[in-house]
Amino acid sequence: MKARIAIDQVRPRTPNAEHPAKAVVGEPVRVSADIFRDGHDILAARLRWRPAGDAADWTEIAMHELTNDAWEAKLTPAVIGLHHFVVEAWTDAFATWRRKVTLKLEAGEPIEVDLEEGALLLLARADLAPAGKAGKAVKEELGAAAEALRQPCGMMDTRGASPPSTSHTIAARLELAMSEQVGRLMAGPAGAVDLTAGPVMGLWVDRPLAGCGAWYELFPRSEGGLVGTIERLSAVAGMGFDVVYLPPVHPIGRTARKGADNSLLAGPDDPGSPWAIGAAEGGHEALNPELGTLDDFAALVRRAGELGMEVALDYALQCSPDHPWVFQHPEWFIRRPDGSVAYAENPPKRYQDIVALDLWGTGEGSRMDAWQACLDVALVWVARGVSVLRVDNPHTKPFPFWEWLITRVHAEHPEVIFLAEAFTRPKVMAKLAEIGFSQSYTYFTWRNTAAELTDYGTELTQGPVADYMRPSFWPNTPDILSGALRGGPIATFKARLVLAATLSPCYGIYSGYELGENEPASEDNEEYAHSEKYEIKHRDWSAPGSLAPYITRINSIRRRHPALRILRNLTFAASNNPAIIAYSRHTDDRSDVVLVVVNLDPHTPQEATLSLGLGALGLPWALAYEAADELSGSVFSWIGPNPFVRLDPVVEPAHILHLRSGP
Amino acid sequence: MKARIAIDQVRPRTPNAEHPAKAVVGEPVRVSADIFRDGHDILAARLRWRPAGDAADWTEIAMHELTNDAWEAKLTPAVIGLHHFVVEAWTDAFATWRRKVTLKLEAGEPIEVDLEEGALLLLARADLAPAGKAGKAVKEELGAAAEALRQPCGMMDTRGASPPSTSHTIAARLELAMSEQVGRLMAGPAGAVDLTAGPVMGLWVDRPLAGCGAWYELFPRSEGGLVGTIERLSAVAGMGFDVVYLPPVHPIGRTARKGADNSLLAGPDDPGSPWAIGAAEGGHEALNPELGTLDDFAALVRRAGELGMEVALDYALQCSPDHPWVFQHPEWFIRRPDGSVAYAENPPKRYQDIVALDLWGTGEGSRMDAWQACLDVALVWVARGVSVLRVDNPHTKPFPFWEWLITRVHAEHPEVIFLAEAFTRPKVMAKLAEIGFSQSYTYFTWRNTAAELTDYGTELTQGPVADYMRPSFWPNTPDILSGALRGGPIATFKARLVLAATLSPCYGIYSGYELGENEPASEDNEEYAHSEKYEIKHRDWSAPGSLAPYITRINSIRRRHPALRILRNLTFAASNNPAIIAYSRHTDDRSDVVLVVVNLDPHTPQEATLSLGLGALGLPWALAYEAADELSGSVFSWIGPNPFVRLDPVVEPAHILHLRSGP
Repeated sequence: MKARIAIDQVRPRTPNAEHPAKAVVGEPVRVSADIFRDGHDILAARLRWRPAGDAADWTEIAMHELTNDAWEAKLTPAVIGLHHFVVEAWTDAFATWRRKVTLKLEAGEPIEVDLEEGALLLLARADLAPAGKAGKAVKEELGAAAEALRQPCGMMDTRGASPPSTSHTIAARLELAMSEQVGRLMAGPAGAVDLTAGPVMGLWVDRPLAGCGAWYELFPRSEGGLVGTIERLSAVAGMGFDVVYLPPVHPIGRTARKGADNSLLAGPDDPGSPWAIGAAEGGHEALNPELGTLDDFAALVRRAGELGMEVALDYALQCSPDHPWVFQHPEWFIRRPDGSVAYAENPPKRYQDIVALDLWGTGEGSRMDAWQACLDVALVWVARGVSVLRVDNPHTKPFPFWEWLITRVHAEHPEVIFLAEAFTRPKVMAKLAEIGFSQSYTYFTWRNTAAELTDYGTELTQGPVADYMRPSFWPNTPDILSGALRGGPIATFKARLVLAATLSPCYGIYSGYELGENEPASEDNEEYAHSEKYEIKHRDWSAPGSLAPYITRINSIRRRHPALRILRNLTFAASNNPAIIAYSRHTDDRSDVVLVVVNLDPHTPQEATLSLGLGALGLPWALAYEAADELSGSVFSWIGPNPFVRLDPVVEPAHILHLRSGP
Repeated sequence: MKARIAIDQVRPRTPNAEHPAKAVVGEPVRVSADIFRDGHDILAARLRWRPAGDAADWTEIAMHELTNDAWEAKLTPAVIGLHHFVVEAWTDAFATWRRKVTLKLEAGEPIEVDLEEGALLLLARADLAPAGKAGKAVKEELGAAAEALRQPCGMMDTRGASPPSTSHTIAARLELAMSEQVGRLMAGPAGAVDLTAGPVMGLWVDRPLAGCGAWYELFPRSEGGLVGTIERLSAVAGMGFDVVYLPPVHPIGRTARKGADNSLLAGPDDPGSPWAIGAAEGGHEALNPELGTLDDFAALVRRAGELGMEVALDYALQCSPDHPWVFQHPEWFIRRPDGSVAYAENPPKRYQDIVALDLWGTGEGSRMDAWQACLDVALVWVARGVSVLRVDNPHTKPFPFWEWLITRVHAEHPEVIFLAEAFTRPKVMAKLAEIGFSQSYTYFTWRNTAAELTDYGTELTQGPVADYMRPSFWPNTPDILSGALRGGPIATFKARLVLAATLSPCYGIYSGYELGENEPASEDNEEYAHSEKYEIKHRDWSAPGSLAPYITRINSIRRRHPALRILRNLTFAASNNPAIIAYSRHTDDRSDVVLVVVNLDPHTPQEATLSLGLGALGLPWALAYEAADELSGSVFSWIGPNPFVRLDPVVEPAHILHLRSGP
């Protein structure tokens, strides 16, 4: 190292700081670093940040020291796009001098030479004051403080009638130098010989929807196509969703089309899987004519916007054997020795209705042409009003491709949000987030016990990945009906909904959840029976017992409570009953504190005594505080950190409690 | 990222991989990395390493996959000095093909096209075989395997009398391609289009003494100077120590010399603190004439060598006001406005007998000239036979200075060991290790309870610092008499000795420990009463109750057990009594397993039931195993993971148990 001051472990960061960390507009970002040097001198540090490519000055914020050489400051980005930040530190000679003089005075040691050292520091800084009126005033103030330090003993004390004591005299000589005003003038790195800058760090700033949003997935063909979907939008918006997400809307291949329940033989009326993209009617840029027209699609996007929602589209880079690209660009696909195009397989699983693009081809022009075609698809749909892309299976395409594609899209459209559907190994999932994905599907679906949820929730909100990976919690998807939801009672559907919606600012459900659809494809198959992927569903949305009102309440609570809309500040509370999980969320300033309590047992009433960290939540230890249940409307008055809770799942498996100091 | 394959988190490493990690000659180093790519193809990886600057080929070792995309391999360095290593990975197309074919066969799917794909892979590799006889044999073997895959159905099966079944035929066609021999020929990255190299990492390799050693600190003047010290060496070696460490042996200043018990007024016979270096007789390169001559010093070094020990010298970069440098190089010191040289202070503490070198001076020539002078001092003593330097207060000198100095010394003398005496904040301590110090004093002195020792021991042996920081555990130093040792009984001295000697491969004691010297300077002063820093001590080494025989036994046990000489593989065992701490150490191959049990209560017999991870220690769960106490000679026969232990501290506060499977 060349610098005397070490600036290490700057956060937020991706693992090797090769890619930007993530933030959203308007939400404070805690920047921290380890800052230290040899010896005992006092350091000062600041955070400088600005949008990338902005010629404007850096915004500067003083950092403050926590414990153990860790420093922090907060920045709040105002615009989307790439930002840079840098931590700078220097030795604060004047603060060091002040401390030394104070300690020596307390110890009764002589400080005459120290006073002269202080005068020299003040005068050196005065010399750096700029020309002009303001600079002249600074020069004068610092000069006066220096002059006072140099007064001979006793000369300054003309206030008292009695002969001045030496200590009183020294206090008078020190008064200006120790004043707040002089402290302010002496702050900052001017004249510091060891001003040191840490690495320049990247921070990608998204719009708020990337950080928080409730999603609803539906198949337009089950709603009667795009026109029918437009009609359904008001109900979806009424439930409080922010995003309505559509599986692929493109023409579906006929070759090897799958029939009901994933059978290999499709009947003439079977609609096929929307993920088998491409047919004579067109490929990824086309709309399936069975769903409607591009005008209908435009109307859908417009109507969603009127209702305060956005349309998310599936971005699934795979083709049916009938996709135009298969014929126009055979070099983008892997050919087998018998001349056939390789279909997707993960033995013993086979996807005969899908052939995989080869995005790492080595033939002439094949790689970059294919990449460009994929980019064009994304840009076409962005031009049609889609700013949220749910990316199908990104873990089966090369990382460098995604980095390239997301960078290109963001260069023109920084507002686009990419959700990675990578149900794969943890390091692959984290890497996709690192290289640019805005949000990530998670293992939430398979985390059921209190211990599993606690470990996973802590990892996602406190671990290194929290700097760049935004989890999205889905109780179900068209592919996944898992755990206690399989054949499960409505209490489980409520509990899993509350968990998803309050453990993660981003969450979503796949339609049918509100009706408690719970029939698995088979004992060892995680999919649904009569999967909507292969057939059209007709649902009765007005069926009694629908969870729609419950969902509406949950989403309304999320909108009222900023504590539920930020990823950080999730704290699990100890519970003496593993069937009861409890956790709090709070805003940085503790103006909003929410405690969620869920009975994970859908059949039996359970009770528990909790242990809350009241101090950390800004709540009183000895006085009463209020726990207002946003679900039931009940208000409890609690005293102390160990409230007792009881939840009968048949009535209501959860509390979502707004905690506040008593009246 | 540009590569398809991610190679992340390569270890061992320093935090930003800017400096080398550490290893010692002959001790296996576990190299690990996260390696993964998109999709489901099988990867292969290898570790390549070599001494830096060596024109010889890299040594290559296959890495194997653990869980969760983590891979590892071990290298064992043979020479000291800087090494480089790099992790490489590639897609193993042939292994991927083998797996696909196997799964398809099991699922009863057609594989005719797959067999042709295998033949093409074999022939492509055959084309890469080198010219010459060996290459020709490879070509033929791979060609034969390809040809077999291409045999028409049924043609190969001539063994049975009954008509061949198709599956039997396919098995015959696959036999060569699936053979071990062909697997070996197809291994390696030849022809891989995605061979990817991780970052080139540095590894500093020290001689074994840097990784493991028992130190004994003594003041030569209390032994009657160097000649007396030479006489004492055989007793020190007899106790089993590897290093005898001497406080500074240079002339001691007279100005502001400290008297007994750190008093400001020295009497005419007070010898002064050896750390107030420099007088009319000379500075850091001179020997205090009161101790003897340079010939005596050479004899001391020689005698230590004959006894299998090394002499460590204090490298204390500070000067008495009488040091020749103060007059020859006033620009190396900070002058105060009154013209005086600033003495060392950390208000309210003052060190009037010491002035601090300014190693960050900005005056002309002052910085690099001072650095060079410090380097010269180190090299002079190295030339006099000292290869171990205990560095006083390195945290009060700039990090870049140490990096420069250690690099320069190591360039000519890679065998030199630097021990950092930085009793300071954890991040500063870790930084000194990161930039080059071979060993580090620790907080062991202030870690007393089982919980404290468990946390600290785990951090030092399993945490990120274990890659580059080697702890040295000292129960006492001339500056520090702390915790239960203050006024403590001999049982505490035994317990702390066992803990230091078995928790860390590097440990040391300051002489007088064996006599149980326990009188603190005062209630709130961590130093000794009648500190040897300011006066000459006369000790009776033959006093009854001396711990010398006990120390001898401990050091002998350390020498017999390789498990106690490596930093890794420390495992704390659960104990149901916080007064009893237990931990095991084992070699990588479990050929040596040692369990240490210590009663931390020096007054009362304590008992506990332990929980041992028998499987991880390579011990049987159901059969008896032996626990042979190396301290008492007792041998216990235990069954199961929960042995019962009882220790009466008045008799013996510890077990050091050699665990081995029963006869």
